[in-house]
Amino acid sequence: MTQSTTGKRKKILTGDRPTGKLHLGHYVGTLKNRVKLQDEFEVFLIVADYHMLTTSSGKEYIEKVAQNCRELVLDYLSVGIDPNKTTIYLQSLVPEVAEIYLLFSMLVTVPRLQRVPTLKEVMQAQHIENPSAGLLTYPVLQAADILIVRADLVPVGKDQESHIEVCREIARRFNQQYIEVFPEPDALIGDVATLIGTDGKAKMSKSLNNTVFLSDDEEEVRKKVMGMYTDPKRLRATDPGTVEGNPVFIYHDAFNPNTEEIDDLKERYRKGTVGDVKVKKKLIVAINNFLDPIRAKRREYESKPGLIEDIIHEGTEAVTKEGRETIGLMREAMGMTYFKK
Amino acid sequence: MTQSTTGKRKKILTGDRPTGKLHLGHYVGTLKNRVKLQDEFEVFLIVADYHMLTTSSGKEYIEKVAQNCRELVLDYLSVGIDPNKTTIYLQSLVPEVAEIYLLFSMLVTVPRLQRVPTLKEVMQAQHIENPSAGLLTYPVLQAADILIVRADLVPVGKDQESHIEVCREIARRFNQQYIEVFPEPDALIGDVATLIGTDGKAKMSKSLNNTVFLSDDEEEVRKKVMGMYTDPKRLRATDPGTVEGNPVFIYHDAFNPNTEEIDDLKERYRKGTVGDVKVKKKLIVAINNFLDPIRAKRREYESKPGLIEDIIHEGTEAVTKEGRETIGLMREAMGMTYFKK
Repeated sequence: MTQSTTGKRKKILTGDRPTGKLHLGHYVGTLKNRVKLQDEFEVFLIVADYHMLTTSSGKEYIEKVAQNCRELVLDYLSVGIDPNKTTIYLQSLVPEVAEIYLLFSMLVTVPRLQRVPTLKEVMQAQHIENPSAGLLTYPVLQAADILIVRADLVPVGKDQESHIEVCREIARRFNQQYIEVFPEPDALIGDVATLIGTDGKAKMSKSLNNTVFLSDDEEEVRKKVMGMYTDPKRLRATDPGTVEGNPVFIYHDAFNPNTEEIDDLKERYRKGTVGDVKVKKKLIVAINNFLDPIRAKRREYESKPGLIEDIIHEGTEAVTKEGRETIGLMREAMGMTYFKK
Repeated sequence: MTQSTTGKRKKILTGDRPTGKLHLGHYVGTLKNRVKLQDEFEVFLIVADYHMLTTSSGKEYIEKVAQNCRELVLDYLSVGIDPNKTTIYLQSLVPEVAEIYLLFSMLVTVPRLQRVPTLKEVMQAQHIENPSAGLLTYPVLQAADILIVRADLVPVGKDQESHIEVCREIARRFNQQYIEVFPEPDALIGDVATLIGTDGKAKMSKSLNNTVFLSDDEEEVRKKVMGMYTDPKRLRATDPGTVEGNPVFIYHDAFNPNTEEIDDLKERYRKGTVGDVKVKKKLIVAINNFLDPIRAKRREYESKPGLIEDIIHEGTEAVTKEGRETIGLMREAMGMTYFKK
């Protein structure tokens, strides 16, 4: 299953736009899975900073992006993504991605891109009346990200499925018009779980301000958990409470390895023999225990000057090499080798 | 006038898509002017092969493009464009053009590009129902071509004026959002003259099959001139004929340096004392005299193996250097220098 037809390990492309620090929701949704995947697959992890420019610009904004890139890589490393197994790289440092993007833009029509549902969603959410050409062609750039390493699999959220479809169409069109250079990558949809927010809203999200960041310290975790939404109908510790859908118990299930303790708390909660505060205090301990090794790893990576830079440069070099090979194959296939040196 | 504010010679970006061999219409319209410009300006001459992919694709098509690129460079050299003065280069060999194109695509909206009149014109002319993303962003790529060398002036036909306007807007937006990196290039519209076709149609054009190519041999010139449209009302050599708007006389005026002979022929044509055949025979001589040094130069360049390649490589290297500088300035201005090596 993890072997491609050539006998090599299958390639996975995954990553994030550098929008800010990652939180427990990212851990549950993708990071946990990525840590596992790196042992089975050849994983490429993109820090997709070019994509940040599709909806906003300006020097101040880009300063924030720069900071986010660093935080993102630290988050990756701290949860156990191993740069010796996973190739972490910065999109904008790979010139070949732009060349492939340019060639791909010839293979997809404007109406096709206008039909991608995320375009309208982003425009609505961000109050964008007229999309930039870059925003319209977001899925084309994403196709270049995926196909530059000729990835076989792309773990994505349900919302990104339509982008993978565009990517598959571009790969197919190229292969049909010339010769087969690209795989038609499959979306790995099943693996993305979501975590409820601390406010009880369906999804933990920075924009909803309902997150626990992987980089939060003990005091931040304490404050956030103490302020968590629980069972709104329960007014006193002696009232019988509801466990199902209750964020404190969802978090216990996700981050507290002591299942006996959880079962005991749930039972007493239902009966009205344990207070919210007690349940939360146990959760604070559990989350801090969960985050402690992550914090330690982060400190370790942060403490060595130039280490993050070295990791990014090494990964970027590896992808640039892949990119050169890919663009070479593309040009060969297309016959764009005239005047080649 | 030819000096930029920094005291250096002003930069001009000009060039062609490699659609096929150039003809007398190109000579009158642009080439003559380019030969003159290279003594006053720093001229960059682009062979815009990426642009060929915006409307068509496929291996056979690209084989034709490859051949056209070679012919185009030979045409340039044969009319006197001097590679020691003019930087001739191949667009697709400069990776930085794709990077700049990608960054520029963030700075222009889709509706703005949809309003560019050439888009509809090309779609109508080529029966394209749904434009590719590459066709929509044609002016963005052209802006990258122009601004990669930070050109001050762009000699274009009236039909391309709207593209220069997009280029100016992109330059302005970049300068406003970050710091001033780009000039707002001016279109040099006045310099483009048109030549009537051999069939009397308004414009010499390959698609109308009414051309005399710069690479035509003497026999081809003879056949084409003998078949030329003249005064349709004149049935016999003894009929008085009309000189104004008559292709044979327009061509005499353009390519026959012997003004006395022309004046004499015109007078006799009006009176009905000279036949079409005689006027045409004199024109054959004139055009062949005009083309002879062009043919000789072409043979010279063709005879040296690898010479065209060397010229393209040298020019491309020069533009790549400019491109690296430009993308460096852009990234510096934007603050996209994080993780820079």
